[in-house]
Amino acid sequence: MADKFVSLRNMRFIIYEMLDSESLTRFPYYEDHSRESFDLVLDTATKIAQRLLRPNLKAMDQFAPELVQGCVKVHPAVREFMRECGDGGWISATATYEEGGQQLPQVIKAAFSFIFGAANYSASVYPMLTTSAAHLIETFGSEELKNTYIPMMFSGQWQGTMAMTEPQAGSSLADIATRAEHAEGDYYKITGQKIFISGGDHDGVDNVVNLMLARIKGAPQGVKGISLFAVPRLRPKQGGGLESNDVSIAGVFHKMGYRGCPITQLSLGENNDCHGWLVGEPNQGLACMFQMMNEARIEIGIGAAGIASAAYYASLEYAGQRPQGRKPGIKDPASPQVSIIQHADIKRMLLFQKAVVEGSLALLFQCALYSDYKRVKEGEEREKYALLLDLLTPVAKSYPSEMGILSCSQAVQILGGYGYCDEFPLEQYYRDCRIHPIHEGTTGIHGMDLLGRKVIMKDGRAYELFLREIESAIRSGMTQPALAHYAERLALAVERLKQVTSRLLEISKSHGQEQFLADATLYLECFGIITIAWQWLLMGLTASRALEKSLSETETLFYKGKLQTMKYFFHYELVKAEGLYGRLMEGDGLTVETSEALFTD
Amino acid sequence: MADKFVSLRNMRFIIYEMLDSESLTRFPYYEDHSRESFDLVLDTATKIAQRLLRPNLKAMDQFAPELVQGCVKVHPAVREFMRECGDGGWISATATYEEGGQQLPQVIKAAFSFIFGAANYSASVYPMLTTSAAHLIETFGSEELKNTYIPMMFSGQWQGTMAMTEPQAGSSLADIATRAEHAEGDYYKITGQKIFISGGDHDGVDNVVNLMLARIKGAPQGVKGISLFAVPRLRPKQGGGLESNDVSIAGVFHKMGYRGCPITQLSLGENNDCHGWLVGEPNQGLACMFQMMNEARIEIGIGAAGIASAAYYASLEYAGQRPQGRKPGIKDPASPQVSIIQHADIKRMLLFQKAVVEGSLALLFQCALYSDYKRVKEGEEREKYALLLDLLTPVAKSYPSEMGILSCSQAVQILGGYGYCDEFPLEQYYRDCRIHPIHEGTTGIHGMDLLGRKVIMKDGRAYELFLREIESAIRSGMTQPALAHYAERLALAVERLKQVTSRLLEISKSHGQEQFLADATLYLECFGIITIAWQWLLMGLTASRALEKSLSETETLFYKGKLQTMKYFFHYELVKAEGLYGRLMEGDGLTVETSEALFTD
Repeated sequence: MADKFVSLRNMRFIIYEMLDSESLTRFPYYEDHSRESFDLVLDTATKIAQRLLRPNLKAMDQFAPELVQGCVKVHPAVREFMRECGDGGWISATATYEEGGQQLPQVIKAAFSFIFGAANYSASVYPMLTTSAAHLIETFGSEELKNTYIPMMFSGQWQGTMAMTEPQAGSSLADIATRAEHAEGDYYKITGQKIFISGGDHDGVDNVVNLMLARIKGAPQGVKGISLFAVPRLRPKQGGGLESNDVSIAGVFHKMGYRGCPITQLSLGENNDCHGWLVGEPNQGLACMFQMMNEARIEIGIGAAGIASAAYYASLEYAGQRPQGRKPGIKDPASPQVSIIQHADIKRMLLFQKAVVEGSLALLFQCALYSDYKRVKEGEEREKYALLLDLLTPVAKSYPSEMGILSCSQAVQILGGYGYCDEFPLEQYYRDCRIHPIHEGTTGIHGMDLLGRKVIMKDGRAYELFLREIESAIRSGMTQPALAHYAERLALAVERLKQVTSRLLEISKSHGQEQFLADATLYLECFGIITIAWQWLLMGLTASRALEKSLSETETLFYKGKLQTMKYFFHYELVKAEGLYGRLMEGDGLTVETSEALFTD
Repeated sequence: MADKFVSLRNMRFIIYEMLDSESLTRFPYYEDHSRESFDLVLDTATKIAQRLLRPNLKAMDQFAPELVQGCVKVHPAVREFMRECGDGGWISATATYEEGGQQLPQVIKAAFSFIFGAANYSASVYPMLTTSAAHLIETFGSEELKNTYIPMMFSGQWQGTMAMTEPQAGSSLADIATRAEHAEGDYYKITGQKIFISGGDHDGVDNVVNLMLARIKGAPQGVKGISLFAVPRLRPKQGGGLESNDVSIAGVFHKMGYRGCPITQLSLGENNDCHGWLVGEPNQGLACMFQMMNEARIEIGIGAAGIASAAYYASLEYAGQRPQGRKPGIKDPASPQVSIIQHADIKRMLLFQKAVVEGSLALLFQCALYSDYKRVKEGEEREKYALLLDLLTPVAKSYPSEMGILSCSQAVQILGGYGYCDEFPLEQYYRDCRIHPIHEGTTGIHGMDLLGRKVIMKDGRAYELFLREIESAIRSGMTQPALAHYAERLALAVERLKQVTSRLLEISKSHGQEQFLADATLYLECFGIITIAWQWLLMGLTASRALEKSLSETETLFYKGKLQTMKYFFHYELVKAEGLYGRLMEGDGLTVETSEALFTD
């Protein structure tokens, strides 16, 4: 198998050179950290990935989780990895010292998440979910809940989950029907069904804590009547120890990919003895859960970019080693075959992958940094980054998810028939990555979130801030001769985006919500392309400044490769926004007016 | 599982109403046929598909072929189906009466191939390959070869294959190294390795006949030294019966999808006793093989459209039955959920699939009809259709293959989490269809074939004929008020295609072959979109004429659905050509100039 699945050099380029994340250490909250401690985190994560995750990538796919006598059996590597994540402080890394964490910036956590996800996406989900679930209890839970659950989760002995989806509700959280009835004591009795719960049960841990949405008896209908509960698989017994909490595993789904992590169906309170403990205020559950959802959305983007990264390096390695064919125009069959990386079309497919992976990663690390800024900055600055993070979360989730599929597909294509066979890992990446546009909100949901909520929230303030950030990058680009042309292209694209946005807002007024949001998925796609073009311009700026200094040959090639990939993005990817503008400006409600009956035949 | 996998109504629309394939029966060669006999073929094929293919779709995926003691074991349904294909005359359907066939037009064969492929793609490959292999022997083989092999192949007892690919050669046929040495008697001794051979061995038949490319000792290097041989697994013994022909199965590939059909590695002449019989003239093998390759390319397009059709109907059924969410703007959580087909974004995803499936099918059936015209028309007319078929073959192979992936992906997306799980067939379709851009020439190869060979052949004659056909459709469209707008859009697109083509031809002269062909894949994509827009305009014309008559409500809906899907294609798909034109006009050789070293990091 290809050894390389991430580029630490590229990660350092984004984290330090482009984003200057080291400057975080000037804030008191992060003052114990340094570039050296960050680097140590990345290096250690890489070693763990190489030792525990990478060797089990295929085995975890082949021996997928199974339901055996009511419990889900997973590959033994899961327990080993969760223990390592507990012992090494990976689950608690971003928590405060008081909570037992290390106060590591989110941007560094994003980096080690990316390393884990690229090495073995399924495995990376277990600690990631546990971190976010513990964070939710930390933010909204009672002291007792915190004391009971967080240490066990941080140690990797207990799994955390996010339990929202129900059979009849899916993406429609307003229709959640799981019930909670206040019982004597401090708990509620829970009854209902949850489906598609990642990590909802498995024998890689000693217990599972589901962070679950349910409706308290008598609560209002819709999203205003949803509350958040901690519902463990085993609950603490009076006097110590654990006992069954009447959470039964109704099934484990058999999936196309992402097979190393079980997705379960939970049945709650079949014997009317499932206890749940309220987290936060009654009927405020969805607002609380958004903290975990937003964290998970960035993590999904990271996972998608991670798989695409592993696929990119595998196809790059193959392309450099596989001889086949000759350059166009070379007719002499006695001349040696060239390695396929010398064919323009193969280079195009590699540049595409590099552009998607590195562009996505820049955006994701930037979003993680914004959440660090939210913590340490104050006043208007703090609000600015909070708004930008809110606006960009659907983009940071969806662009890597959707483009990751195409990127992995190009990696498969480079290997040809071998890409389709399980001798190489590409076919697994291709199956694994297809989950991302589905879980944590489908792409359609994120389109509506971006256009119908984020762009218009606070009178378009977040959107205005976003435009200002891009325009500032454009101004910097204009000052660099090598970049001015690309800065101009981006300026033109931003003008079009503004026109499209205005046009859609007019439609919202003249034709109502349905027509306004009908092409929200296309708007998200268009917005995503421009966002990544902005990231590429920022990377181009960083690289061209670096090239002004005297550098080793390897370093020169690295920065020149950045500039070439930036050019690729503008020449091949940004142009794809053209067709989207055209369509979005029409705003004619073609799909709205298509009645179901027209699908008759 | 969803019952519907094809629409016979739509197939009849294309075959009879749009293409007027019935007029073939006015030619003496087809005079025994009639619309009734064609319909009988389609109905019978559907019944066979429902009885033998559909019920084994999942089982053939789960119990994939295995190599057991040197032989490949396949699902028992394969033998049953091959026998049915023999007994029912499906393998020989298009052969002449003298050969034992029924002189069925290719357009009707394309239709039943589509039905079989949509029901169970893997299963459909066995007879399809056998038909094309037998046709190759019929066209180029000696009388003895014909008498020995064709009856056994037509009866479904012997499998035919196309054995080209080798481990070191892949797409580069010039580098084929399998050797043939003339022996005493009428045969050659074959030694070498072939990989990725579909149906190269299996126990669903009694013998396998590989139509194989090899190099006769002393032949010129490159493609000019390749000859074609029939290399059976078991060879006829003197005095009757069969004996081993020293073809051993070195392996069976484990694939992501398309798992019901074995892809094998063959080792030839390990004991220096593998006999091959020359088909056609020495060193003319590639020219002969192109007959089979071109037939197979159309079949691949049909298979891709077939899988996409099955996925479309499965997602359409689900979308109509699955309640979830409410229309935008409806805030009352007590109101009932609507079926998801009522959401604009779901309708967009369904229209996309319908546009891809039906647009592809129209092109494929038209290509099949062109090959019927080649047989029965004469002089200039004959040459015209031969050239159009040549030009459009890479498009008819690649557009359904590439877009079929995206189409199946949208079907998965409509089912959300269920689309990713094996309770529904969508995840299998998604895996199955990924093979199509790889086998029978990768998309990159077809891009170079289209731009580097087909567009320029005979001084651009085929390309000119193609433009004339489109321009004729545009003129017809202009006369219909409902279509004039779309005809204009297509006219604009064609103008751009002409500009792009001229620009690329200039680059060929000024910058050479490599830069000329660097973006050939994008050219193919652009060309494909315009070709399908043309097909949609033709379907729109047919539908709008039909709507002038008095019709039942169902029929009215059918034709209106056609017009709506045509509009969808122009508003959402044709616009995608915009970005491609932009890029292709640049022609700056960005990928050519990207050195391998720039991928360093």
